[in-house]
Amino acid sequence: MSKVTCQISMSVDGYVAGPNQSVENPIGEGGMRLHQWALATSTWREQHGGRGGERNADAEIVERSMQGVGAFIMGRNMFGGGDGEWDEAWTGWWGDDPPYHAPVFVLTHHPREPLTMDGGTTFTFVTEGIESALEQARAAAGEGDVAIAGGASAVNQYLAAGLLDELHLHVAPITLGAGERLLEGVGAQRLEPVEVVASPAVTHLKYRVLR
Amino acid sequence: MSKVTCQISMSVDGYVAGPNQSVENPIGEGGMRLHQWALATSTWREQHGGRGGERNADAEIVERSMQGVGAFIMGRNMFGGGDGEWDEAWTGWWGDDPPYHAPVFVLTHHPREPLTMDGGTTFTFVTEGIESALEQARAAAGEGDVAIAGGASAVNQYLAAGLLDELHLHVAPITLGAGERLLEGVGAQRLEPVEVVASPAVTHLKYRVLR
Repeated sequence: MSKVTCQISMSVDGYVAGPNQSVENPIGEGGMRLHQWALATSTWREQHGGRGGERNADAEIVERSMQGVGAFIMGRNMFGGGDGEWDEAWTGWWGDDPPYHAPVFVLTHHPREPLTMDGGTTFTFVTEGIESALEQARAAAGEGDVAIAGGASAVNQYLAAGLLDELHLHVAPITLGAGERLLEGVGAQRLEPVEVVASPAVTHLKYRVLR
Repeated sequence: MSKVTCQISMSVDGYVAGPNQSVENPIGEGGMRLHQWALATSTWREQHGGRGGERNADAEIVERSMQGVGAFIMGRNMFGGGDGEWDEAWTGWWGDDPPYHAPVFVLTHHPREPLTMDGGTTFTFVTEGIESALEQARAAAGEGDVAIAGGASAVNQYLAAGLLDELHLHVAPITLGAGERLLEGVGAQRLEPVEVVASPAVTHLKYRVLR
């Protein structure tokens, strides 16, 4: 059966975004430092139309990160466009051809018609809560996995509800001291270490969530 | 020059003790689960007068954990005995022969005469703050390192103040959801991964703190 997974870059003190997030700086002050390990890899650059970059263990992790994923779920804040009623001109941070290339389900309190983007990405807005979004994502994913793309609040809700099967943390060697914190309010959970990959830039900790 | 180090077991969500700490349960509900990896090792058992246990990578980490340490610093809560003025009958959690076998400096707001225990452990109570405690511990340690033994608040203060050289996290594969949190309010810090050791029971992440 397909899994519900999450891969996310986080600081050693557990933040997945820095403080003072804004339209100009969607992952907050210092937040880009969480992703530098990925931006330095050859696979990330090739996926984004560039070239060069490191061909290392981190590049393999980036390459594997999208494999087997049939649909994504993300929180409203990760899709962006501010709080409250939708500004229909807002179609996400990623331009006409978002990097998902699959159905994406956006958790929101405000209804909106689905959006079809280039390259196979669709955004469907779900107002009925996390379980409904998961059900729709599973149906859309078919044999594929459902990946919780972020942000922290969405991941925390799925983990706390016992709906996450796998958590793959990319731990950047920094602390941020403030921002949006992963693993907040997730209760007592038992995990099983599945894989640890270490590089100078980041430590990848893959866990299975035990029931 | 000798280093200021900290080794500490923590959950994936950053807790080093569970909620509802008490005299009966000093590391809080579920807190013992943070230490099960160590309790299972041959070295821990031998250090505590037992036998058996696993001879594995975790056992080596336990064996190395005390090596080179010339003095320890701990917070009042880790020494125990409740808040406020001292109950002189309280001499710590560890009995007559505490496992430190070295000078230990206890951060407190309440003066108390030093305590000399069996096996080379002394407890000196420092009311002049973390820098004074570090100065005294460095003097006592000679060529040896100074280890911040815990709890979370003491470690966080030394890290935030730029006084910690090395942070060795033993990450247990659990979340606690509540308790005493490490790496709270430590600001933005840059770390350098020095060593990663993974076992089924725990992941050891050793960082150098960069200035």
